[in-house]
Amino acid sequence: MNEVNNSGSCIAAYRIFGDKTTDFSKKAESIAVGLTVGSWTDLPQARKQAMEKHLGRVVQIEVFEGEGPERYADVSIAYPDINFSRDLPALLVTVFGKLSMDGRIKLMDLHFSESFMSAFPGPKFGIEGVRSLLGVPERPLLMSIFKSVIGHDLPELKEQFKQQALGGVDLIKDDEILFENPLTPIDKRVPACMEAAKEAEQQTGQKLLYAVNLTGPTFQLKEQAKKAIELGANALLFNVLAYGFDALHALASDPDISVPIAAHPALAGALYPSPYYGIAPSVLLGKLMRLAGADLVLFPSPYGSVVMPKEQNLAIRDVLRSTKLNQEYASGELQPDWTLKPSFPVPSAGIHPGLTPWIVRDFGRDVVVNAGGGIHGHPGGAAAGGRAFRQAIDAALQGRSLQDFAADGHLELQAAIDIWGAKQ
Amino acid sequence: MNEVNNSGSCIAAYRIFGDKTTDFSKKAESIAVGLTVGSWTDLPQARKQAMEKHLGRVVQIEVFEGEGPERYADVSIAYPDINFSRDLPALLVTVFGKLSMDGRIKLMDLHFSESFMSAFPGPKFGIEGVRSLLGVPERPLLMSIFKSVIGHDLPELKEQFKQQALGGVDLIKDDEILFENPLTPIDKRVPACMEAAKEAEQQTGQKLLYAVNLTGPTFQLKEQAKKAIELGANALLFNVLAYGFDALHALASDPDISVPIAAHPALAGALYPSPYYGIAPSVLLGKLMRLAGADLVLFPSPYGSVVMPKEQNLAIRDVLRSTKLNQEYASGELQPDWTLKPSFPVPSAGIHPGLTPWIVRDFGRDVVVNAGGGIHGHPGGAAAGGRAFRQAIDAALQGRSLQDFAADGHLELQAAIDIWGAKQ
Ligand SMILES: [Mg+2]
Ligand SMILES: [Mg+2]
Repeated sequence: MNEVNNSGSCIAAYRIFGDKTTDFSKKAESIAVGLTVGSWTDLPQARKQAMEKHLGRVVQIEVFEGEGPERYADVSIAYPDINFSRDLPALLVTVFGKLSMDGRIKLMDLHFSESFMSAFPGPKFGIEGVRSLLGVPERPLLMSIFKSVIGHDLPELKEQFKQQALGGVDLIKDDEILFENPLTPIDKRVPACMEAAKEAEQQTGQKLLYAVNLTGPTFQLKEQAKKAIELGANALLFNVLAYGFDALHALASDPDISVPIAAHPALAGALYPSPYYGIAPSVLLGKLMRLAGADLVLFPSPYGSVVMPKEQNLAIRDVLRSTKLNQEYASGELQPDWTLKPSFPVPSAGIHPGLTPWIVRDFGRDVVVNAGGGIHGHPGGAAAGGRAFRQAIDAALQGRSLQDFAADGHLELQAAIDIWGAKQ
Repeated sequence: MNEVNNSGSCIAAYRIFGDKTTDFSKKAESIAVGLTVGSWTDLPQARKQAMEKHLGRVVQIEVFEGEGPERYADVSIAYPDINFSRDLPALLVTVFGKLSMDGRIKLMDLHFSESFMSAFPGPKFGIEGVRSLLGVPERPLLMSIFKSVIGHDLPELKEQFKQQALGGVDLIKDDEILFENPLTPIDKRVPACMEAAKEAEQQTGQKLLYAVNLTGPTFQLKEQAKKAIELGANALLFNVLAYGFDALHALASDPDISVPIAAHPALAGALYPSPYYGIAPSVLLGKLMRLAGADLVLFPSPYGSVVMPKEQNLAIRDVLRSTKLNQEYASGELQPDWTLKPSFPVPSAGIHPGLTPWIVRDFGRDVVVNAGGGIHGHPGGAAAGGRAFRQAIDAALQGRSLQDFAADGHLELQAAIDIWGAKQ
């Protein structure tokens, strides 16, 4: 970030709001000292020498003068690693525990020391690994979400699964609000759906990952994950923010949990949208998810029903996939061979085939196109819905317009465009 | 909440923001359906009968028309218990998972079914239990926080502990940013501090709880807690929001974790302050903390350095201590003998003795007065700082002014007033 050697520190960037009277430099200094050694200027010289390695440092400060009375500053502070253990609860409590309650302040970015990062193997599969499980080396993947699940029994769920699978989707995910329940408990749901996957594969010739929702008590998550895998689950869905990033990290770094993990953003909207408070989406749904080991990360798309400003979306994309770890992740210099597998971005909510060219334009090939209503709502059913999406992906990759491609005998795509249109 | 029988549902209250065109009733209906059965009006009649027990219901809706273009509505929705497992991640993901990302919406309140609540024994000690451990049946308790801890070695920490203890404090808590570290790891820190507590008790004749910071990997928290207790720790401090409410619940309901737990609000400021997003403080730091089993809950006071509006503070106080569980907690009728121990409110940050009468006025006797700088910054040292607070508490209980009481030979209180004043 700057010339000083920050390699032994993690760096947090904040946006701090104030008014005409705010002394942002003083504020930054008080954070750097207050969240590390507690007090500094009053310390005797000998004591300062002993404490210096613990002292937080203001790395950068940029003040923005507004038109009105409001001003803000972007402030970066380096926190020496020596002060906290190498886990995300410790880092987050250090850099934004008490500080989060100190007026209008938002955590905008994090950079990590190599030593801190070395505790995080990151995604076990990453983009390459997921592609290799599916045998799909290049094209954007297609994920579909069960439509209604609550109150449905096992045969209904299995049939729903099979219809989705027949459409050529690469991944099917549970609804994040499907918990252990008498109708479709995990020990019946997983075998039934994996059987449907096999049946569909015989017709489509295509592999499929089923991300089973991992739920229940925190201290039973590992056992529950292993049970799901023993039952045949070949992926997991996890509501990370309901359990904390450390739980994801522990699941992802457990060698016995040998399947990709898709991170669901449930509850994230309580944390990222305010300009004044909370945690920026690129940190919350980007860096922290990847560091903690999510192979795929869902987040609201800028196209559909649940909206997130596009620049925030692209910032998530960038950090999930970045190979420039020195710039994007590290506070100092990384070893040349340092690596962290990239995570698949999964922009979600309100996606229909007509939006696919936009997703491919904004996200490229390394993206998962994720749809629920846009698959199940197809007039030909879910299988036709999946095919419409696959056709839309093909069109986008060939640089052809959806209308043009549909007219070429791609009837499912045509039917989708007739209902939902094709975003221009 | 209303005449309909909601006993089989949990109820979430939201504030939803919109403009002149917003149809809040339609919005409320779409939430009630969308977060439960998925679709409703299109279902065949027979299907509706089968699905009705899963269907969310709009319980209440009140629209507020503003002066400007902004309008908002307070909306309550009942979610049938049958849809989710009896754990807080499931409840929170159901009622505010995807919905948190759906524009400007804030989770304002929660009411729970008896069946849901029955999975939560709540605080193991509560206010009575903590008082009984300390042998202090009536007066407000006094807690002190280590001053600087990072970079200090064991003898320094022990001496700091002892000085605090000698001042007559009832509880001493670790700083929430003190993690496992080579200088003062938990297996050295706990024995050293508990020895200091014993030495002080010989002089003061007073018992003391030491809340040790419970940190590190999620899946080792129970072992770490038990280790701390075996080493002599008689209370725990826990950064709940870094790990999720379910982790607190699991710790609090483990019979082997036989000490009070103090919940720290670290990271809470990322969630509660915005009027438009997040979770109201009375839910985040009130109901959920008590339900999950916190015996003491820290939160920003309205008096000191880290401010929270007073009505929000008092709302936290009310739900932490309420005995009106039917009104405050339940969605339906509770069994007459239903109970949930109350939690101690601990308004914190920037507290000095001159604020004590205000705390006692606003919180009564069942409060913990919590100070760091207001104890360590006393010109006579931390022991004198503690005594000044104890004198301030005595004055408040006797309804005497601090100045008057100080003039009666209470020199430590006089010295505190001389520095920090006495809030009028
Ligand atoms: Mg969903
Ligand atoms: Mg503190």
